[in-house]
Amino acid sequence: MEQQSASAGGSDSGPRDSCEAVVLVSRPHQALVPADLRLEVQPLAMPGEGEVQVAVRFVSLEPFTRLFLDEVVLGRHIPGIPIGGVLPGAGVGEVVASRADALQVGDLVEGRLGWRDGWTGPAASLRKLDPSLGAPQTALGILGLPGLSAYTGMVTVAGIAAGETAIVSSAAGAVGLIAGQIARARGARAVGIAGGPEKCAMVVAHGFDACIDYRAPDFEARLAAACPGGAQVYFDNVGGKVAMAAYANLARGGRVALCGLLSVYQGEVGEAGDLGRFMRLIMSGGLIVKAFSTVVDCPPEALPDLSRWLSEGLIKLPETVVDGLGAAPAAFAGMLGGAIQGKLIVRV
Amino acid sequence: MEQQSASAGGSDSGPRDSCEAVVLVSRPHQALVPADLRLEVQPLAMPGEGEVQVAVRFVSLEPFTRLFLDEVVLGRHIPGIPIGGVLPGAGVGEVVASRADALQVGDLVEGRLGWRDGWTGPAASLRKLDPSLGAPQTALGILGLPGLSAYTGMVTVAGIAAGETAIVSSAAGAVGLIAGQIARARGARAVGIAGGPEKCAMVVAHGFDACIDYRAPDFEARLAAACPGGAQVYFDNVGGKVAMAAYANLARGGRVALCGLLSVYQGEVGEAGDLGRFMRLIMSGGLIVKAFSTVVDCPPEALPDLSRWLSEGLIKLPETVVDGLGAAPAAFAGMLGGAIQGKLIVRV
Repeated sequence: MEQQSASAGGSDSGPRDSCEAVVLVSRPHQALVPADLRLEVQPLAMPGEGEVQVAVRFVSLEPFTRLFLDEVVLGRHIPGIPIGGVLPGAGVGEVVASRADALQVGDLVEGRLGWRDGWTGPAASLRKLDPSLGAPQTALGILGLPGLSAYTGMVTVAGIAAGETAIVSSAAGAVGLIAGQIARARGARAVGIAGGPEKCAMVVAHGFDACIDYRAPDFEARLAAACPGGAQVYFDNVGGKVAMAAYANLARGGRVALCGLLSVYQGEVGEAGDLGRFMRLIMSGGLIVKAFSTVVDCPPEALPDLSRWLSEGLIKLPETVVDGLGAAPAAFAGMLGGAIQGKLIVRV
Repeated sequence: MEQQSASAGGSDSGPRDSCEAVVLVSRPHQALVPADLRLEVQPLAMPGEGEVQVAVRFVSLEPFTRLFLDEVVLGRHIPGIPIGGVLPGAGVGEVVASRADALQVGDLVEGRLGWRDGWTGPAASLRKLDPSLGAPQTALGILGLPGLSAYTGMVTVAGIAAGETAIVSSAAGAVGLIAGQIARARGARAVGIAGGPEKCAMVVAHGFDACIDYRAPDFEARLAAACPGGAQVYFDNVGGKVAMAAYANLARGGRVALCGLLSVYQGEVGEAGDLGRFMRLIMSGGLIVKAFSTVVDCPPEALPDLSRWLSEGLIKLPETVVDGLGAAPAAFAGMLGGAIQGKLIVRV
């Protein structure tokens, strides 16, 4: 079986023999700079048996992609991507050639396509999208990895309950913004932490009960004031000093859902003695800290629940869309530095 | 109702109007030195209604007592003991005067009597001992707080299961030594961590599958070799660098039962960057870290289970007994510095 769209052979919508991709030029020294990445042309294969070629329309830029730019991921035994390798990430695109029964030319799909404008690979690794559920980009946001991560952490790992308070760091980012709205949808209070008054205002406009600017000189006092009696849950996206302040404001037996460590990935190191303070906070608070993997821990009810909340208007996610893969390196560096609100998407 | 023993009025076994007690003279600057404590004579009241006077026979010296010598416990809102206050701790003694129905003169009791040779207070705060269960000191060891802490952490919090491997720090201390034997009794492997070859030999003689000397230059490599495939549980008594090495040897989804932080209490601070590494280990391992309180989390089946294992010979606890409260400060400082094996008890 082989299908091609009517305008095949190099046109906008047919299969192609090359694509543009963003590759790693040099491993970041702590904070990533745009010059660590480069856009280049690469050959693109025609699909083999069971494969499809996808014309990529949207690429998702995700904070945790930063991890894979180090030689070894998180100091464990997982190697990062090689120099010259294409940056990994989720994408949405349209099937332009198929040798797989499950997908037809014209189908919309989502998958780990990487930062490129064309992709060829096994159809089995893709998720076919139902266009009636919403715009294609929702598959990269509320109904994609950010939404599933927020759900897994807030509901499955932290078990947020009505009447509780959840602190959420990186609350203006995609995962954090969804996580706080999930807490609200479950009847809990949500206290966000974000950088700068504009982001904090956006977070509160999305229904959070409060959002504290971690750059404010009285950050810790403000956070404490927003959590009278202490919070029951902390959804951590950043680690480091922000995490320390949040841990200190958890009530006895508080639960930490550890989703990401943006500040640690970027090389912000703790000061001498911080480790002792961190351990003391866990010990004295009788805390539970649980790191989770969305791939491993996400329950089957996550997507139906998120779809329902999306359709009921309980969860919204603003998008920052940049045009063209050439703009991706600078946008990604900006996101890691805290400059982006909501979901960051490249329109290819 | 009032009872006194036949030889009341100042003799060895009757009620008295004074006692000796160990008090705090100066707050330790990081590591405690014996001169921070002093033995002094204090008045001792006759029992009021519902109270008893106890002639203390054994005092338990416990690592976590160190916490209460700081101005604020663990940096939270719990004040430490005041300067001049008696050091807290469990003790076993004999009732020498009673104005309480529940206790008779001659009864053996255990309670938080503090570091003193005589105690007057409410009978309701004491536990009456059954002499048939074992020597009175077992109420300070396997059938006391150390045993209950080990059980709560290893069974209730970490949920150790047959076929798993548990790493236990401070394995030559009372809690650690019992914790590892509980893991063995439940069909798991136990890998201890202790300081020096003598302690490690003692730990292995108590049934641990291995015990690694944290002072050895190749400590981390030896620990890794003792945990092929990684361990499922880490029972932490110390925090700091030993904890870091243990976390690095946990398999994915490993569980940490956080019982104590001896190295942190003693002022060993992490080096710059350690906090980031610690957070990365939790994140990348998908670990669960749970601090617990024996008082809050200990289940009712703990004491019956421990009694059975004790009677079956599955759990043993060596004692280091020093004579007289005057020897307590130096013995305590030695224990905090890692010089004591098993349970440290003062015979009064």
